[in-house]
Amino acid sequence: MAKLTQLIDNEVFRAYATYTTIVLLKMMLMSLITAYFRITRKAFVNPEDTASFGKGESAKKYLRTDPDVERVRRGHLNDLENIVPFLGIGLLYALSGPELSTALLHFRIFAGARIVHTFAYLIPLPQPGRGLSWAVGYAVTISMAYKVLKTALYL
Amino acid sequence: MAKLTQLIDNEVFRAYATYTTIVLLKMMLMSLITAYFRITRKAFVNPEDTASFGKGESAKKYLRTDPDVERVRRGHLNDLENIVPFLGIGLLYALSGPELSTALLHFRIFAGARIVHTFAYLIPLPQPGRGLSWAVGYAVTISMAYKVLKTALYL
Amino acid sequence: MAKLTQLIDNEVFRAYATYTTIVLLKMMLMSLITAYFRITRKAFVNPEDTASFGKGESAKKYLRTDPDVERVRRGHLNDLENIVPFLGIGLLYALSGPELSTALLHFRIFAGARIVHTFAYLIPLPQPGRGLSWAVGYAVTISMAYKVLKTALYL
Repeated sequence: MAKLTQLIDNEVFRAYATYTTIVLLKMMLMSLITAYFRITRKAFVNPEDTASFGKGESAKKYLRTDPDVERVRRGHLNDLENIVPFLGIGLLYALSGPELSTALLHFRIFAGARIVHTFAYLIPLPQPGRGLSWAVGYAVTISMAYKVLKTALYL
Repeated sequence: MAKLTQLIDNEVFRAYATYTTIVLLKMMLMSLITAYFRITRKAFVNPEDTASFGKGESAKKYLRTDPDVERVRRGHLNDLENIVPFLGIGLLYALSGPELSTALLHFRIFAGARIVHTFAYLIPLPQPGRGLSWAVGYAVTISMAYKVLKTALYL
Repeated sequence: MAKLTQLIDNEVFRAYATYTTIVLLKMMLMSLITAYFRITRKAFVNPEDTASFGKGESAKKYLRTDPDVERVRRGHLNDLENIVPFLGIGLLYALSGPELSTALLHFRIFAGARIVHTFAYLIPLPQPGRGLSWAVGYAVTISMAYKVLKTALYL
């Protein structure tokens, strides 16, 4: 077990673990927000989900799309599209031996940008609020990818 | 290579590797089930996929959505939304030095819950079958995230 | 830091880092292509994204789906469905002590297959071009999963 503990004892790796867990928990929160809007807006997609509203036509009318539900789902998908690259590239970046302060800067900006992105999507804020927050997270991931390829490139 | 072999020799890490591979393979299976329903229901989305059915209108009628195809695709997306957090948080959890028995409990319950979730979605089982299996996997991931943050927190 | 540097000094791990970063960057590129098509085709989904086109009905007509935008989005989702398993299973495979030449073969074929898949989807190439490139990446991931389970299985 010693080797594993040494990995988690590394400060850069601990920072990666902390911010990755935060952004993944934030992404998981989107599921709860989707469920909240589905229930309050009564907008479901699976027939078995509306069974408690009665049978036949009385339940069927709740099989519909709702703008708020679709908005949260788009935010959730955008999280997947951006947090998956952070998960992979961030791990490799943390293992590529960056300065602690540089690594913290990357992780903090990425996590902050994704949290702002979620608020910008759900409120919604006028553009370019959402676009900028997306671009900041994207740029941070590119910067980490550059460091990984510079350190580890083996084609 | 010695260091790497030591990582994979750790029993908690081996358990993580085993259950992660199982749930990722299960998720990959969703692609095959989608393809199976697309072919048997003749419900495609890309024009080039229907070219073998002839040209013009005779092929165009197969560019349609099918309830069974859409159901599998929703199950697949739900897998992505839940297995990606498990992949990341589970890895960090495995490196945070948990008891083997505790770790096995987390991994087994998560994998079991996701397999039940797939059956509940595809059969489909009446609610709250699918909802409960989803919630169990979600709760396991939260529990692992708590352990990661307790062990590694570095903001 | 020594332990971490040793991990990234391992040639198999460096190859994993390189090809994972490449396929994740390729996946991230799909976001830019989607944005390009949304802007050139004027096909948006969020009302706030069309505000610069004026107010009311004049902007509302740009809230529509476009076949090119939807095609890129399907390619992006297919990337997520296939690159997430590669990310997880590939990492475990790299830690399972494979021969360098065997590992390079897996990583190169996977990355090549996903790049071909993207071209096949976006051009689009006639089938079975896209189907075959998808199947090659899928088979490579299964092969790595087999090695992981053979090396690490702990249920």
